[in-house]
Amino acid sequence: MATKTHERHKVIVVGAGFGGLDVVNNLSGKFVDVTIIDRRNHHLFQPLLYQVAGASLAPSEIAWPIRHLFRKRQEVNTLMAEVVGVDKKAKQVIIDSGERLSYDTLVLATGATHAYFGRDEWEPFAPGLKTLEDATKIRERILTSFEEAERTCDLVQQEALKTFVIIGGGPTGVELAGTIAELARDTLARDFRNMEPSKSRVVLIEAAPRLLSVFPEKLSEYTRKALEKLGVEVITGMPVTECSGEGVVYDGKQIKANTIVWAAGVKASPAAQWLGVEADRAGRVIVDQHLNITDHLDIFVIGDTAAATMEDGKLVPGIAPAAKQEGKYVAKLIMKRLKGKEDNPPFKYSHQGNLATIGHSLAVVDFGWIRLKGLFAWWIWKLVHIYFLIGTRNRLSVALSWVWNHSIGYRGSRIVMKTSSDRARKQHEDDK
Amino acid sequence: MATKTHERHKVIVVGAGFGGLDVVNNLSGKFVDVTIIDRRNHHLFQPLLYQVAGASLAPSEIAWPIRHLFRKRQEVNTLMAEVVGVDKKAKQVIIDSGERLSYDTLVLATGATHAYFGRDEWEPFAPGLKTLEDATKIRERILTSFEEAERTCDLVQQEALKTFVIIGGGPTGVELAGTIAELARDTLARDFRNMEPSKSRVVLIEAAPRLLSVFPEKLSEYTRKALEKLGVEVITGMPVTECSGEGVVYDGKQIKANTIVWAAGVKASPAAQWLGVEADRAGRVIVDQHLNITDHLDIFVIGDTAAATMEDGKLVPGIAPAAKQEGKYVAKLIMKRLKGKEDNPPFKYSHQGNLATIGHSLAVVDFGWIRLKGLFAWWIWKLVHIYFLIGTRNRLSVALSWVWNHSIGYRGSRIVMKTSSDRARKQHEDDK
Repeated sequence: MATKTHERHKVIVVGAGFGGLDVVNNLSGKFVDVTIIDRRNHHLFQPLLYQVAGASLAPSEIAWPIRHLFRKRQEVNTLMAEVVGVDKKAKQVIIDSGERLSYDTLVLATGATHAYFGRDEWEPFAPGLKTLEDATKIRERILTSFEEAERTCDLVQQEALKTFVIIGGGPTGVELAGTIAELARDTLARDFRNMEPSKSRVVLIEAAPRLLSVFPEKLSEYTRKALEKLGVEVITGMPVTECSGEGVVYDGKQIKANTIVWAAGVKASPAAQWLGVEADRAGRVIVDQHLNITDHLDIFVIGDTAAATMEDGKLVPGIAPAAKQEGKYVAKLIMKRLKGKEDNPPFKYSHQGNLATIGHSLAVVDFGWIRLKGLFAWWIWKLVHIYFLIGTRNRLSVALSWVWNHSIGYRGSRIVMKTSSDRARKQHEDDK
Repeated sequence: MATKTHERHKVIVVGAGFGGLDVVNNLSGKFVDVTIIDRRNHHLFQPLLYQVAGASLAPSEIAWPIRHLFRKRQEVNTLMAEVVGVDKKAKQVIIDSGERLSYDTLVLATGATHAYFGRDEWEPFAPGLKTLEDATKIRERILTSFEEAERTCDLVQQEALKTFVIIGGGPTGVELAGTIAELARDTLARDFRNMEPSKSRVVLIEAAPRLLSVFPEKLSEYTRKALEKLGVEVITGMPVTECSGEGVVYDGKQIKANTIVWAAGVKASPAAQWLGVEADRAGRVIVDQHLNITDHLDIFVIGDTAAATMEDGKLVPGIAPAAKQEGKYVAKLIMKRLKGKEDNPPFKYSHQGNLATIGHSLAVVDFGWIRLKGLFAWWIWKLVHIYFLIGTRNRLSVALSWVWNHSIGYRGSRIVMKTSSDRARKQHEDDK
């Protein structure tokens, strides 16, 4: 890959998540033309997605139009399209319309989606949380469950409507359980007349022996207790064995629930199939220490869709900071290789820590050299998240929403767009 | 309707728009139990809905959960349900589940919806703007039209994708045309590479001889010129004769357009059918001077779904202030009658004025005693709208959005939730 002086080097980046964005941010416009392709028009700040599901934040507060982010860089093209394949030989990306786009270097940063471990039929009953559409659907399901619980006179049905099961005790599951518990106990407490939202059941089920398995055991234990104080029932060491419109089954016991959310597992996007290369069990593309695929210096895979190995043999974790580091590394490497530098150092992941919040005033933080929990950890969590949002406007807007949420318990985004009959019709169709 | 001391008087209000809300706001809790029924969970500030369609505001900035608004009033019940009928004899409201709710007094404030004057088949091609769902759908169509225009190499198709037709030159049509023109010329100006959004065509077609027919002729003329300065083509005195996926036809001429918005006409909700009473041509229930229907002191109809006549024989206009005045009047009248007062003065509408904005820094205002146009009128328009929003949070949030929008041309809500393939699939299904 020598420098061509007569023609600019074409880089195609697929996926505008944390990884893809940081590739483009770190590519200088002098030598390259960049096309960033995403099937959506926006970059999404996924770490706060659960707050959209919990009606605390509006979708637009955590999303930015991709092409707006790069409006000042004439050499960057943004394309809203779905990639369906890669022709490695012709060096082309194939998009949904059948068109082919040529690249000199390709970076795949297409992320991950929910995995139901072979039980895909569970998806309609237990939607996962990866996109704004997912989040608004879950928000709608939670809010209308309360509305329907208020309407019904059937106490058994009301019980199911007021029961919320979250499957998976990682950060997303913990955060969702906390926010739903607080929604029921604080935000909605005075809003109903025929039923008490504060008597809702929020159940968090984790198959592994403890919550937040990437955290030290002490913080897992703290998290469990903090959630239980919020009124969440925490069940660990128990896989869910059945999932339906009726609720869930674990350990032979049934929990009747109208709302189930899946936060248990993810699988990589189909990048491995597009490339026709080896993938690990979770579908991630195996990459070398430069984040290239075997025999292809012109193809990089980064973020949640890549299986990159650290020096200690462990995998780079599937979190935003890792994707960002990989993005930056790949951009610099492309520039170095363009300048003819061949002997480049491998990617080195620097772990900055793990964070998770529990409800609206507690968190756990593990920086490795220091571990924090409680209110102080929660302040760190808030500051880190505000800091990583893009642009002053969204920072102000999210801060404003949080102030209202915390001081007077008002959640600014308690909207159900559909009418009650729309939902009834939908239910009827689902039943058929 | 004499006072019952032993039992509280049951008032059912159907519809939580401006009218319905002000009925509940003005009913004192001492004598009455109130149930407010709406098929949606939120009250919507419709005058700013066009800004959601234009990606300037987020849906939650102009919507409030109804039950949250009345959380402190124990005597107010909120029910998210769709009314399907009224049994006047049994004094019951019938909802979609088949349940019947008894009332002593019923207030119908169910608003209006789009009317296609017998051409209902136009609706899928030219959606109207009445709900948050409508607004987000129109926003999605506008934003993806630009995305698809950027993708296509077919110049004829690109032209159609960049053409936006608004049918109807009332305030909504004028405001929509202005906001779309500015979106194309300012907000998106630098964001694309393969096409120039500023060369979009925005066409406003009105069948009547002039825009804003409720305003004085001079302000209509001013509005036309101001819109033309923004780059809007204004066509008046020409009804649209055809409307399809291809575009519109008027006066034998075709305009190829991918996005058409209907702002031409409304019809009342089916309240007249529920009641089995006389309606006018637009489906509005004819009410007497106390806003009751004939022979039924226990049934009121207000707002856009009522045809109330003023002293001069003209109809009370279908605008928010009128609905609010009617709501307040009815609440007070119910209280008076409960106290045994029989000889009550008729409803008297006090017209405060008409307002409409043209783009982001001009407006026309007609207070009757004074008429204003331009920047000063626009400031009045802004202040009035901020004032009528509910709650400090939404006022701050909308003000923040406007500051960003005006100072740096950033529209905070440029989100398309669906992927490019979702849209392609949808298109494919529509074509079949």
